[in-house]
Amino acid sequence: MRAVDIIIKKRDGFELSKEEIDFFIQGFTDGTIDNYQASALTMAIYFKGMTEQEATYLTEAILHSGDVLDLSKINGIKVDKHSTGGVGDKTSLVVGPLVASLGIKFAKMSGRGLGHTGGTLDKLEAIPGYDINISEEDFISQVNEIGIALVGQTGELAPADKKLYALRDVTGTVESIPLIASSIMSKKLASGADAICLDVKVGSGAFMKTVEKATTLAELMVQIGKACGKDMTAILTNMDEPLGLAVGNSLEVIEAIETLKGNGPKDFTELCLEVASHLVVASKLVKSLEEARKLLIQQINNKEGLDTLAKLVKAQKGDDSYIYHPEKFPNAKYKFSVEATSKGYVSHIDALAIGNVAMMLGAGRSKIGENIDHAVGIVLNKKVNDLVLENETIAYIYSNKEDIKEEIMELQKAYSYSKNPVDSKLILKVIK
Amino acid sequence: MRAVDIIIKKRDGFELSKEEIDFFIQGFTDGTIDNYQASALTMAIYFKGMTEQEATYLTEAILHSGDVLDLSKINGIKVDKHSTGGVGDKTSLVVGPLVASLGIKFAKMSGRGLGHTGGTLDKLEAIPGYDINISEEDFISQVNEIGIALVGQTGELAPADKKLYALRDVTGTVESIPLIASSIMSKKLASGADAICLDVKVGSGAFMKTVEKATTLAELMVQIGKACGKDMTAILTNMDEPLGLAVGNSLEVIEAIETLKGNGPKDFTELCLEVASHLVVASKLVKSLEEARKLLIQQINNKEGLDTLAKLVKAQKGDDSYIYHPEKFPNAKYKFSVEATSKGYVSHIDALAIGNVAMMLGAGRSKIGENIDHAVGIVLNKKVNDLVLENETIAYIYSNKEDIKEEIMELQKAYSYSKNPVDSKLILKVIK
Repeated sequence: MRAVDIIIKKRDGFELSKEEIDFFIQGFTDGTIDNYQASALTMAIYFKGMTEQEATYLTEAILHSGDVLDLSKINGIKVDKHSTGGVGDKTSLVVGPLVASLGIKFAKMSGRGLGHTGGTLDKLEAIPGYDINISEEDFISQVNEIGIALVGQTGELAPADKKLYALRDVTGTVESIPLIASSIMSKKLASGADAICLDVKVGSGAFMKTVEKATTLAELMVQIGKACGKDMTAILTNMDEPLGLAVGNSLEVIEAIETLKGNGPKDFTELCLEVASHLVVASKLVKSLEEARKLLIQQINNKEGLDTLAKLVKAQKGDDSYIYHPEKFPNAKYKFSVEATSKGYVSHIDALAIGNVAMMLGAGRSKIGENIDHAVGIVLNKKVNDLVLENETIAYIYSNKEDIKEEIMELQKAYSYSKNPVDSKLILKVIK
Repeated sequence: MRAVDIIIKKRDGFELSKEEIDFFIQGFTDGTIDNYQASALTMAIYFKGMTEQEATYLTEAILHSGDVLDLSKINGIKVDKHSTGGVGDKTSLVVGPLVASLGIKFAKMSGRGLGHTGGTLDKLEAIPGYDINISEEDFISQVNEIGIALVGQTGELAPADKKLYALRDVTGTVESIPLIASSIMSKKLASGADAICLDVKVGSGAFMKTVEKATTLAELMVQIGKACGKDMTAILTNMDEPLGLAVGNSLEVIEAIETLKGNGPKDFTELCLEVASHLVVASKLVKSLEEARKLLIQQINNKEGLDTLAKLVKAQKGDDSYIYHPEKFPNAKYKFSVEATSKGYVSHIDALAIGNVAMMLGAGRSKIGENIDHAVGIVLNKKVNDLVLENETIAYIYSNKEDIKEEIMELQKAYSYSKNPVDSKLILKVIK
């Protein structure tokens, strides 16, 4: 088999076989196939696409390029969730504790963030002492004991994905649906859960700009997961504004805590309940989404979700007093209120722009390895369809620097207004 | 400027600017842009094509990646020809001496062959002593003195092309019209001639399989050349059978000698006269192709073309007695006649298959740097539209090995027959 023949086959629109895909990914991983052949193949895939079968083979090949977690020592059905990345997305911090409080095993490995705000790991590290580095053994025993672990990657999961993504990033093939699907799914499948709920973001602040494209991606990921024997759900959710109100690491942890106490923003609470409901049904605890939702609301009202978050923090060496006393999180030096530059109903909030402001403040990274400031960020005061009067405060900026003229301007530009309320819906579609 | 943005721009179907193309080719040449970005860009070009303007910019960028020959010290109009590569193509050995015998300056740099038979340089080296390595200074003074030089590359012409072609070869982007055009034209323009005649081969034995594709390529090359101030002609010629009868290095030199004496095969003689006529007109010696052709036939009849070939060989340290006594070329050990396996009119001779048999005999290289055997090869006894009786000899194989069962079988398979003569035309189109 020759790499160039595989490239030409795909270039000419033919379906690649399992053997061809395995050969290419193995060779790419061990370096016998060079980057320049991989970038040519991915560009050909960009133009010619992949069948569901090919994407599944590709996912499996990438998955088997590294370690695959064996969660068989964890009793019961293991559930996991994944979001394609949104601004203000702290869903795991709420969904995990909620379902774990019901006895469902939530064993999740997360990544660090790049751009916008930090990833889930960065948010958790806003809690003093929280340790994301846990051995596979401890990871498994922790999930068996308290039902939840939220850790960084142990072992080397899907190294081919890491290498391929870095290459795609500099060769213009990030935006290929089968490549995105196999990248996400290879890592998810390597993490070993039995049931997975995917939150696919749609809109101007998301990678998928249209419902049509997001649907294609979601359907492909669901099919790949099912072909690998997993219980799959994908939810398409609106990213035409940030999720919830808080954008920034400790600010988002505080919002997650409030949400577990029943005081969360409406849209964020709704998304958490939706994702968690699917996982509860997948765990076979109850049969319907309605029953699942009732249970979850009960776990908010009786604070068992909150207690589980505290248990998680404690198990991973964090200071769990912060969970019950979020006022302990250090404040940023300055708090500025940002005023509306127009009036009317908020029609749109450019989530990427808000994420960018957070990064300018120091809440996110522009390069791998950069330090981030856990205290800084933004709390929105007005969301889509809120009526705004002239000069009313639309958001607060928490900053450790005094001169934030540029940040304020960018934040103001992120808001659009209209005379009348707009159609706006958080959950756009559920794909099973 | 970032390479990835240029890749994405082309991927999305936009026209690249001169600055972007220059930036990419300069970076690729000096190594600041990596192979994996170049292979992604060429794959995007494969799918999205290039405008005439882009292809011209690309050609100029590749051209200026290395030395450009300055032929201004050669008096008069300098002419050159180029063939896209055919089996049995020894046209330069006839066209060069013929036009030079009329006082036209024929200053040509050639390449070595890969696959099939050798290139023009390999053919010339069948003549004992012939030296292809000549300094630029000697090259210029030789053309001024005897009107012709046929040499290997001096200096470093279009190094970006060499690097890019090697990359395209292993990443599935050889078959892209703008990339082929800029590859050929960058080298031709670097050689410094004023008028260029391109022989674009069409058919099963050629790189361009259809007249349509060959026309597109030829028109693009003519436009690029004109945009760079050159007098351009492209001729589309049929490669549905090998050119002439001889395939193999010294066998082809002998055929060229016979053609210069007026005893050449009909098709090969016709092609030489056609190409040479265009160069004669471009040199402004006469105004019409008819007048040019008359002059050229005169140079065959009075043997001045042959004498010029002898002068060329002598000037480049070769033994010119071989030109007047071609019987001096060493014979291969064995001569086998190959019999027809069917009867009827020859309808097609697979030129690539014939080239492959020549390579199996040792006349060509399968890898760069391999030695080739100048004596071996094939002389066809039957060409398209010749009537063949059962068991009649269709070709002779000149071999230095005794067991050539496989070669004979391959050669027999290369011939197709039909009940009636077929439509066959050598010169398909002239593009100016």
